[in-house]
Formats: sequence, C-alpha cells, structure tokens
Amino acid sequence: MNNPVVEANGFDFSVDKAVKIAVAKGDGIGPEIMDATLRILNAAGANIEPQFIDIGEAAYLSGNTSGITEQAWLTARQNKVILKAPITTPQGKGYKRLNVTLRKALGLFANVRPVMSLHPFVDTNFPEMDVVVIRENEEDLYAGIEHRQTEDVVQCLKLITRPGCERIVRYAFEYAKAYGRKKVTCMVKDNIMKLTDGLFHKVFDEIGEEYPNIEKEVQIIDIATARVAARPQDYDVVVTSNLYGDIVSDVVAEIAGSVGLAGSANIGKEVAMFEAIRGSAPDIAGLNIANPSGLINAAVMMLAHIGQHEVADKVKNALLATIEAGYHTTDIYSKGRSVRKVSTSDFADEVIARLGNKPENLKESRLSDGSGLIQIPEYRRVETKKELVGVDVFLDWRDDDANQLGTALNTIGAYGLKLKMITNRGVKVYPEGLPETFCTDHWRCRFVSTETEIKSANTSYKTIDFAQVVDLLSKLNQKDFEVIKTENLYDFDGQRGFSLGQGE
Amino acid sequence: MNNPVVEANGFDFSVDKAVKIAVAKGDGIGPEIMDATLRILNAAGANIEPQFIDIGEAAYLSGNTSGITEQAWLTARQNKVILKAPITTPQGKGYKRLNVTLRKALGLFANVRPVMSLHPFVDTNFPEMDVVVIRENEEDLYAGIEHRQTEDVVQCLKLITRPGCERIVRYAFEYAKAYGRKKVTCMVKDNIMKLTDGLFHKVFDEIGEEYPNIEKEVQIIDIATARVAARPQDYDVVVTSNLYGDIVSDVVAEIAGSVGLAGSANIGKEVAMFEAIRGSAPDIAGLNIANPSGLINAAVMMLAHIGQHEVADKVKNALLATIEAGYHTTDIYSKGRSVRKVSTSDFADEVIARLGNKPENLKESRLSDGSGLIQIPEYRRVETKKELVGVDVFLDWRDDDANQLGTALNTIGAYGLKLKMITNRGVKVYPEGLPETFCTDHWRCRFVSTETEIKSANTSYKTIDFAQVVDLLSKLNQKDFEVIKTENLYDFDGQRGFSLGQGE
Repeated sequence: MNNPVVEANGFDFSVDKAVKIAVAKGDGIGPEIMDATLRILNAAGANIEPQFIDIGEAAYLSGNTSGITEQAWLTARQNKVILKAPITTPQGKGYKRLNVTLRKALGLFANVRPVMSLHPFVDTNFPEMDVVVIRENEEDLYAGIEHRQTEDVVQCLKLITRPGCERIVRYAFEYAKAYGRKKVTCMVKDNIMKLTDGLFHKVFDEIGEEYPNIEKEVQIIDIATARVAARPQDYDVVVTSNLYGDIVSDVVAEIAGSVGLAGSANIGKEVAMFEAIRGSAPDIAGLNIANPSGLINAAVMMLAHIGQHEVADKVKNALLATIEAGYHTTDIYSKGRSVRKVSTSDFADEVIARLGNKPENLKESRLSDGSGLIQIPEYRRVETKKELVGVDVFLDWRDDDANQLGTALNTIGAYGLKLKMITNRGVKVYPEGLPETFCTDHWRCRFVSTETEIKSANTSYKTIDFAQVVDLLSKLNQKDFEVIKTENLYDFDGQRGFSLGQGE
Repeated sequence: MNNPVVEANGFDFSVDKAVKIAVAKGDGIGPEIMDATLRILNAAGANIEPQFIDIGEAAYLSGNTSGITEQAWLTARQNKVILKAPITTPQGKGYKRLNVTLRKALGLFANVRPVMSLHPFVDTNFPEMDVVVIRENEEDLYAGIEHRQTEDVVQCLKLITRPGCERIVRYAFEYAKAYGRKKVTCMVKDNIMKLTDGLFHKVFDEIGEEYPNIEKEVQIIDIATARVAARPQDYDVVVTSNLYGDIVSDVVAEIAGSVGLAGSANIGKEVAMFEAIRGSAPDIAGLNIANPSGLINAAVMMLAHIGQHEVADKVKNALLATIEAGYHTTDIYSKGRSVRKVSTSDFADEVIARLGNKPENLKESRLSDGSGLIQIPEYRRVETKKELVGVDVFLDWRDDDANQLGTALNTIGAYGLKLKMITNRGVKVYPEGLPETFCTDHWRCRFVSTETEIKSANTSYKTIDFAQVVDLLSKLNQKDFEVIKTENLYDFDGQRGFSLGQGE
C-alpha cells in the first residue's frame, strides 16, 4: 500500500515568492471578466503570477476531444492552481465535458459552493443566508456503474468509501476552521441506508470529535433539503455525498437569487480549480457588459486557498462595497436601487477604487480570522478481520411463485450451503412471504453455511469458502437457473457487513 | 407468468350501496380529529360505511409487533380502503413501523402528497402554489440491499424496474386526468444514470403519449428541486422515483408552511390508505383543540378515490370556506387575520355549516371536472432476446498499481474470456489509466469473450456461456484473487444493457 499524500494545498508560504497560477481566459464573456478580475487582483496586491493556458472552444476545434491542449495540461498540473473563466463546448459528438475530465483526471474530490445573500441588491426571500455546500465529487451513484439484468430490472451501484468519506468530511471541518465558520451540518439518509450513508455519518462523528470548537449536526436529507429551502439562514457549512450535494447546492444557489454571481471551487489532492458558476454567454460576448462578480468570487476562494487571506478579504469587501454603492452591471441593475449602470471594466474600476473599504450592510468578509492552511492527512486503511459467511445469488426467473423457487433451490445440493431466504425488490418472499407482494423477474437468493443456525436477527453466521460459492454457481447453472449477479456476504471483525431482507 | 391485475380502484359504482371503509381512530389526537372528520363526511352525504379497526399503541402493547391486530388486518384487506388517524408507536425495541408494514404487505406503490397554499391564512412565500407529488414507494435505493465488500467500500443497490415505473407513471397521468390537472413533470437524473433513471424517463415518454391533453415535462432532479423550492407555483403534478420523491415532497410541504394541514394517500394494487401527514401529538390529546384539517383533506382524497367526487368537492370547499371565514384552531390562529379561535368540534360544526359554500379567494376544488375512476392496467412483460456477453468481476485487492493487477489478470487463462478493462470507483485505471486517480481496494474487472474485438465505443460483443464465468471465478479463486461480487453483462435485442467505464 502506497497511497499518495493527500493535501488540498501544498504551497510554500515561508518565502515571499509569487504563486504561479494557471489562468484560462475561456470563451464568450470569459476574456472580459478574466481581465477585470486580474486587474482587481493585481491592484489588491495578490502575490500571484498568472500563466495563461489554452482550454475551451479553440482547443476542442483544433482536435483535443477534452478541450484542453497538451501544453495547458502540463501547466495546470505543474502550477496546481487553476483559475478558469467560462468556456464553450462546441456542438457535436465526441466532445467530452472539460470539467468532468479535469475532475476525474486530477482527483478533484470536493466541490465547494458558497452562496451568500446580496439582499436588497439582488432579490431573495432570504436576506440572511450565507451557506457553503461542500459536496463529495467522485463516488456515490455518480460512478455510473449500471447493469440491466432482466427484462424488468435495471440496477445502479451506489458506492460509498471510507477514504472518500474521510477526505470530504475532513475538508469540510478544515474549511470551517480556515474560513472562521461556526457549524458543519452533515446530510445523510442513514435511517434507510444504514451501511452506506451510515458510514458517512460515522466518519462525520469520528472526525468531528477533532474539532471541538465547531458545532456539529446531522440531518436526514429529505427534511434537511426542505429546511434549507425554507430557512437557509439556519445553515453555515453543509457536507454531504455526491447526489444529495448536487441537489442541495442547486437549491441554495436558486433561492439566493444570485447564482450568476457565485463562484465555486473543485479541490483535489494536489490540484484545485476555481471558476464562476455562470456560463460563457456568447450572446453578450465582447460587449463589455457582463457581470464579473462570479469570477471575482472564485478568485477570492483561490486567494484563501493559497493562504493570501488578507488580499482575499480586501477584494471581497471591495466587491461588496461596490454592489452596496449601487454600481451595477445590467444583470442586476434596477432603477430604484441602483445608482449607475456600469460596464464590466467600469465595474472593475469601481471595485479597485474601493480596495480597503468595507461593506456597511452586507456581511464583511473576515477570512483572516480563520486558521489559514487546509490540511488533509493521508488515508490509512485499518485492517480488520474479514470473513466470508454467505452469498446473495440473484436469479432471472420469470414465474411468480416464490415458494416454488424456494423449494427448487432447497434441493440444489451445493456443498455445505443452504438457502436462507429469497427477496424480491428487497421484500422477503420466502420463506413465509405475503401473497400481496408483487414480484418482478429479479430474485435475490441468500445462501449461508449449512452449519449456520437460523434464528431471526441473532443469527451467528459460520464462515464459508469461496470455492463453495463457485460450486453453488456451477450447480445452479447445471440445473438451468439463470444467475445474473452475486454479492458476497462478509463479517468484519465479527460485525455483519450486510443488511437483512425486509421481513427477514 | 400470472401477475395479479393491478387496479388502484375496483369499486362497484353501478349500484348505490355504501362503500365499506376500514377506519382507524388512532392514538393521541386521533379519535378527536377522526370524529370531527366522520361527522363532516356524514353531513356531506358521503356514501360510506365505516368499520372501525384496532391499530396503533394498544395493538402494539397487546403483543402485535406491527401495531395491527389480526382482525384489523382482515377488515383492512377486505374493505380495500383505509382511513387512518395518526398513531403512536411505543418506545422500545422490536416494534415495526406500521406504515412500512402496510406499504410492503399491501404493495402500496404510490405515495400521493397534494400541497396547496392557504395564503394569507397560513404564512408562506408562495401564495399560488398547488402541487401534488406522486412518489414511487417500493423500489429504488429504499429496497435496502446493502453490502460492505472491502475494508474501504460499502455498496447499496439502486433497483429501478419497468413494472414499477409503468405503474407509478400511469398512476400520475391517471391522477391528473381524474383530478382535472393540466401538467405532469417527471424528475430524473438520467444525464448521469442513463440506464436506471433513463428507464423511468423512457416509460414516462411512452405512457405520456397516451395522454395528449396533459402537458408533459422532464427535468433533472437537482435543477428541478431548486426550481420547486424557488417557484412551486410552476408545478402541477410531479412524478418521480422513491428517493427524489422523498426529498421533493418534503420541500413542497415545508415551503407551503402548512404541513400540519396536509393529507396523504398510499395507493396499492388493490388497497389504498388515506391519512393526515401530522403525528398523534399526545401532548394535546383529549383537549379538543387539534386541527382536523389534515385528516379532512385525507378523507377528501379518499372520496375522490372511490368515485364520490361531488361529495369530495363539497367537503373540501366547505373546509376552505371555513378557513377563509377566519374560524381557526389554535395552531393557525392569529389575532389579526382570525375571527374566532375554535375547538376541534366547533371547527367541524363550522365546516358542516358551510357545506354547499365555495371559497371566495382560495382555489375552489373542482374534482368533479376530472374523469373519475383511475385505471392501472396489468403489467405485461415484453420478452426480448437476452444474451450474456461478459461479466464484471469485482476484486478486493489492496495494492494500488492497476497495471500490476491488469498484467496478472491477463495471464489468468479462463476459458474463452479476456480482460477488457479495470475501473476503480467507475474510473478506468487499466489499460491506460492516469497516475492521479486515487484507488480504493475495490476493483471492477470486466471480462469479455476472447472473440470480442475491442475498438472503443463500437465494440460488438460476442456471446459467452455462464459456464465460462464459473470457470473464470474458479481460476481467480485458485490464484488467490478475492472475488467479492459479480455483475453479468447482457445485450437485450442487440442493445448494450450496461454502462461503459468512464474513460472506456
């Protein structure tokens, strides 16, 4: 075992040299808003050295199916920090989405989306909200492992891993610490998914103990999403798995009303990427009217990531002060509350003029109150005693009398194995099923050692050998049962590593 | 194959005899609000014959672990319609949740949750909302099939079935037709889960064609949930799978601000159950102050279900008129907008006094505009040509060099099978993996026929025999590879029934 060291952030803060940043100007409004952003960063004294890279439309059209040139790829990986303007993916088949490529290739495990109300300058029902959603970005159902197994049934695997959970939960607490935040809320559905979501919850509790000064809470995802939608001001940092995070982060952005002004980060083991959430808006490209706030917010996150918190605060507070002063680009301009409609470059000038100022009513950025550097330790696998105690064999069987199937399987005569139960869509149908249960053609048949004494929930499983499973599969095949898949049953340190059937 | 006929609703409307209803008075405030509701139904001329059944706390404590007596069980199944007040589940181990038992045992496949704004009598940001969420209730991740397979990885199966999709989608369209609704929105994540959520989407499109007068739309669940939270008034009927429906129905109820006033239905093949969403509130039991609106709304749904639409309209409109008139129970009483604070029984009297009235501002119920009876046809399995073309074998392997694993597997020498690729958490790591990909101890190794020519996406898979899979597993076991699970790969009518690896 030789896992790579996981560090969200490995910069040398001891010397005063400029941090090299890979900067992608992007497509559409990209170049305009990037110029505006870089001018502000420069005026604020950010100690960075931009190195421009070619990604996006031109790269796609010159034959790079992932939208990034070889040279850009090299620069991005060397510099480890990417600031990215929106890009355009050309129409047509064969083009891969650049963000998916970057996320997969660079192991960007955390998606970070801070959303803050800009009330009364942007309409929202929630003037007090200031939420950061930290979403696991590599696993869960989004691993995309799907199989159609019978006429009736298709399956997708939800994979939750301990290293995945540890990394994202650790990042959330470290983020809270670094950014001076008070509370982390974990969202799961472990009342139903006791093993997968249960693992996420457990890791949250374990790692949370190391952060006594941060308030912790765990909520069930359905109620949690409803509460976020109704009272987002009750939340601070949210950490959750991939699918839930996808939903919750969209809810938060939508109800804030300021999705076009938000930035986001994708954080990896070594590399991190910062970008605006908004698209490249080719219809207004070159008109010098786009709102650069999303990219400015992304740049603020980048500065915090590389440890330049004071500059980050300076930029963010000047941005807020400019919005408060009523200098608005067309997207948020409104006669009553705006003072002047400004262009992209004028907006940047107004922000630069306010560097050093603080907002009067909007919430001041105080990143420098946080602890700075985010540290993610290397994953260490803890070895436990793993024992094979049975197997779930799934059959495609097109009759509907579970007792008939059960009786037939009882006579299969596999070496040292016996049928314990059959379920259909998770509901026990043998032995002692209910006549009302509708059955598909997808039957899960649980086999255990003939030495296992079966007495409801307290069953103590005896170990078996995988050769017995092979023998069982062979016999089932000989007797014309159609095996479609298997899942081994394991105990880990004597703890059952599998769920019981509903009704088992 | 002999699947049962699926009918949400099989009542004899030709004769004028009363429909027998199993009525559970429940615990806590249950008896009070049930009495109020039944008095109203009686006064409105509902043609029903209540038969009281024992479920809940007393049944639990007298030794029925599911909270329902044998006799109650019999009556409920005979009558096929259950009106249920809230119950109390006693503290302590071994008690099963009654609703889960009923849902599983009776095959209640659809959960129906209408939520309507009662603005300005109940606070909400969304005065115009009137949404019904129809949620699949039997499958998806909630089948609860979970396995821990390695030190690092736990898995939950998401199962989506064609009969499950057909039934819930059909129910949603039939509901829209029966209740005079205009639009059905399907929510899925089929840009990621192309096979499972793709099936739900496909069935929605297929069945939707039979309802030309109903507007149809399909939305991606993350954006959809965000839009529901921000603009619920844009939605009418929503149909979705179990987990998504769990989240969306909670969001809708929460932002309406009237969750305590809502009813819900659980609809099965033969049996249907109607109840208030609220709990039994033992703290205010016997005080005659509880708001019976949730149960009255459930009763209105029940009347519509058994075809008594005019009575349903009459009750619902009198309920709305009473709320408009300012007669409010303590839970929604407020000095400014209420006229009088009323008890549970007084509230029922006020509703009865208004039978025949219509609301002036709140939206009038016009169920009788709908088509009435909901019909769900029997599921008919369409047989296609199913061919085994490979197998995904999952290994527990604790090193991290995918090339080493790939090389070893290439020499395994299973009869007529060869390694096509290896993925880790869905990302291809062999051949031609990327060095940055973090690997867990959970490796998916795809084997196909040695006769299959591998040329990227256009691979044409050759059929194999399951005996070859058994041979492969045996050889892997002999060479000390730890097989943890398998997933067969099938073509259906020549169409690939499995997803490719990311990067495959």
